[in-house]
Amino acid sequence: MIRLDSTHPDFAQDFARLLTVKREISEDVDETVRGIIAGVIAGGDSALVDYTCRFDRLGADFSADRLAVTRAEVDAALDACPREALDALTLAAERIETFHRAQVPGDHLATDALGVTAGWRWTSLESVGLYVPGGTASYPSSVLMNAVPARVAGVPRLVMVVPTPDGQLNPLVLAAARISGVDEIYRVGGAQAVAALAYGTETIAPVAKIVGPGNAWVAAAKRRVFGQVGIDMIAGPSEVLILADGHANPDWIAADLLAQAEHDTAAQAILITDSAEFAAAAEGAVERALATLPRAEIARASWRDYGAIIRVRDFDEAVPLVDRLAPEHLEIETADAEALAAKVRNAGAIFLGSHTPEAIGDYVGGPNHVLPTARSARFSSGLGVLDFMKRTTILRCDAEALRAIGPAAVALGRSEGLEGHARSVAIRLNL
Amino acid sequence: MIRLDSTHPDFAQDFARLLTVKREISEDVDETVRGIIAGVIAGGDSALVDYTCRFDRLGADFSADRLAVTRAEVDAALDACPREALDALTLAAERIETFHRAQVPGDHLATDALGVTAGWRWTSLESVGLYVPGGTASYPSSVLMNAVPARVAGVPRLVMVVPTPDGQLNPLVLAAARISGVDEIYRVGGAQAVAALAYGTETIAPVAKIVGPGNAWVAAAKRRVFGQVGIDMIAGPSEVLILADGHANPDWIAADLLAQAEHDTAAQAILITDSAEFAAAAEGAVERALATLPRAEIARASWRDYGAIIRVRDFDEAVPLVDRLAPEHLEIETADAEALAAKVRNAGAIFLGSHTPEAIGDYVGGPNHVLPTARSARFSSGLGVLDFMKRTTILRCDAEALRAIGPAAVALGRSEGLEGHARSVAIRLNL
Repeated sequence: MIRLDSTHPDFAQDFARLLTVKREISEDVDETVRGIIAGVIAGGDSALVDYTCRFDRLGADFSADRLAVTRAEVDAALDACPREALDALTLAAERIETFHRAQVPGDHLATDALGVTAGWRWTSLESVGLYVPGGTASYPSSVLMNAVPARVAGVPRLVMVVPTPDGQLNPLVLAAARISGVDEIYRVGGAQAVAALAYGTETIAPVAKIVGPGNAWVAAAKRRVFGQVGIDMIAGPSEVLILADGHANPDWIAADLLAQAEHDTAAQAILITDSAEFAAAAEGAVERALATLPRAEIARASWRDYGAIIRVRDFDEAVPLVDRLAPEHLEIETADAEALAAKVRNAGAIFLGSHTPEAIGDYVGGPNHVLPTARSARFSSGLGVLDFMKRTTILRCDAEALRAIGPAAVALGRSEGLEGHARSVAIRLNL
Repeated sequence: MIRLDSTHPDFAQDFARLLTVKREISEDVDETVRGIIAGVIAGGDSALVDYTCRFDRLGADFSADRLAVTRAEVDAALDACPREALDALTLAAERIETFHRAQVPGDHLATDALGVTAGWRWTSLESVGLYVPGGTASYPSSVLMNAVPARVAGVPRLVMVVPTPDGQLNPLVLAAARISGVDEIYRVGGAQAVAALAYGTETIAPVAKIVGPGNAWVAAAKRRVFGQVGIDMIAGPSEVLILADGHANPDWIAADLLAQAEHDTAAQAILITDSAEFAAAAEGAVERALATLPRAEIARASWRDYGAIIRVRDFDEAVPLVDRLAPEHLEIETADAEALAAKVRNAGAIFLGSHTPEAIGDYVGGPNHVLPTARSARFSSGLGVLDFMKRTTILRCDAEALRAIGPAAVALGRSEGLEGHARSVAIRLNL
């Protein structure tokens, strides 16, 4: 953990170093992934089954007719889920849906004084593939966060792929799929699943876009199929930045720092405070909380390697630091949190006040938990309904309107050396 | 040029082949680009000047203090531009601005019955770099189409880079920059310009996102710096799909097909019609028009290699073909163009009726001419104001609200094995 102080003469330099710390666990998998994608394109279902047997250690009897997870299997999974978790998932899905409904964009069409009609129309993507990791990183909440906005956008076909290493499949993942209306599910994962979604096989029809988190293989495969299909962002390790003043509860803030740190040894939790006493209290509280945390090993490594406590003179001084860090999650627990939040330009999501721990946003707040990491909140947004729609612009001139604006198009076409462009307008105006 | 007929038994197969034709001119420049980017990161201005001297053949006296194009140089360029072209650019800029103003998104914040306040806020990117190609593909209209939406979004810092091969700089490009309010301009191009924008040099401060068209080097560099900064789409060769019935004017349609074909030998122009007579007439008209077209050599190659005329029984049959082609530009010149347009899901931009040639949209219609190519209209939109903004979600619970929804977050955290998440909520509820 790094301690920085804005009054220190080296602060600018130390802070700049914090910004450039690499937290990506890079694995060179690109060549393997290229081969797997080519294999699925060439071999279809048969290649997909082979890779799945090999990587997920499924038995020799696994075959193409078992790729799809059946309705009965989903029913059985639901029966196996604890009631409390199902209720929580249902509440989360409802809240996520309500929040995202407000994001549905409006169409626009207007005719101006010259008679030119111009506007646009939003349409949903025709199909979306949702990647869900298997094993320990198999999070039902992520299913909701990806599937619900797609449904709200109106995507008619939603496909889920999830690997079943050693045949294991988290029943809550299937429950989340059911709750969010996903009924086309395949037990495949890795680069082979991404390839199947992008190019299609006999069993899996291709989709227009692939979303959802995954390991290095999945990320590399998504990068490779981009263009053939759309993809969402490639998420990096998670991160939180907390602004807290001396009135905050150090144990609560410590819990929030560790909720982030427990994700991953490459996760990052940073505290900015204007109080030296609070900084010391929070640091102590982190150590105490680590003592009983089940994932302490992971959280301790993250906090040790990437954690930071930055002391500032006042929170106005913190605003430019926040904008440069552009955190995925920003918690503000200061006297006038709203006013401070209004000054921030770059953050994926902001959590205001002492009763809004970031974990609320991970599950049941309503806003999406898929958010820009690694400083990309400087130029991108969290997942939302717009990611599952696209805009088609519309233009209509009548003869009069073309007479009004056509000559300018002819002039510009000629000035750019594109006489064919000019002529396509001029021919209609007898120019 | 390929002729297809939907009544032919092999039609499905022939059409599928048309979809998969590769029109990319692929050049393997990735290794060179990697070296150039590393060079600029390490060497800053000095490397940027070296690459620029070498690739743009500038004299040995070129130095860092000449990277910036001065205000006086822009003034001089404006004086050198023909009045007609300046007026046309001004009209275009005004119309583009009016259209894009309607795209500015609204913020949202609402408190629900449980006391949870949730919503979002849109903010502009803090800085954007606009790449403008030099030489023959230097289009002032593209400057407007990229810069105006950025200005409308409220981007405070807009930087333009444009190479000056052999010292040449298109005065209309500088005029377009002035008209759209871009006053920070550097005479650099290629991968070295992209690297400078992404990582910064002594003279050029880094930006948050890079937009604008470029050659294979520029495209490869944009792919490489993605993540460090945002990028827009990587555009492929341009394309038009025209739906026209027997009442359309074959000479007008031929002019529109060639306006697209003249862009590039890899451009694609396709006509779908329900009339065999019209198909033949349009084909003849294309040949006649080619005879006098200045860029006939390019247009002829494009039409020969990638052009197509598809005959359908009726236009309802055309709709699924349009959606699979997902054209960048779709012209509809049929009896009820609006009704047909309403059935289309996938298209970058639609041009309705006989007096809306696509070239109007390239220049003065108002909608953006930066549009998804290579079938990516299935999952993406043309450039717009949203590309220069990002959304930060906001969440606030009071103590009451946390009591209402917190337990569900605790349950989900535990069900996902993330006890630290659960505790950050539970500690506030004394659970």
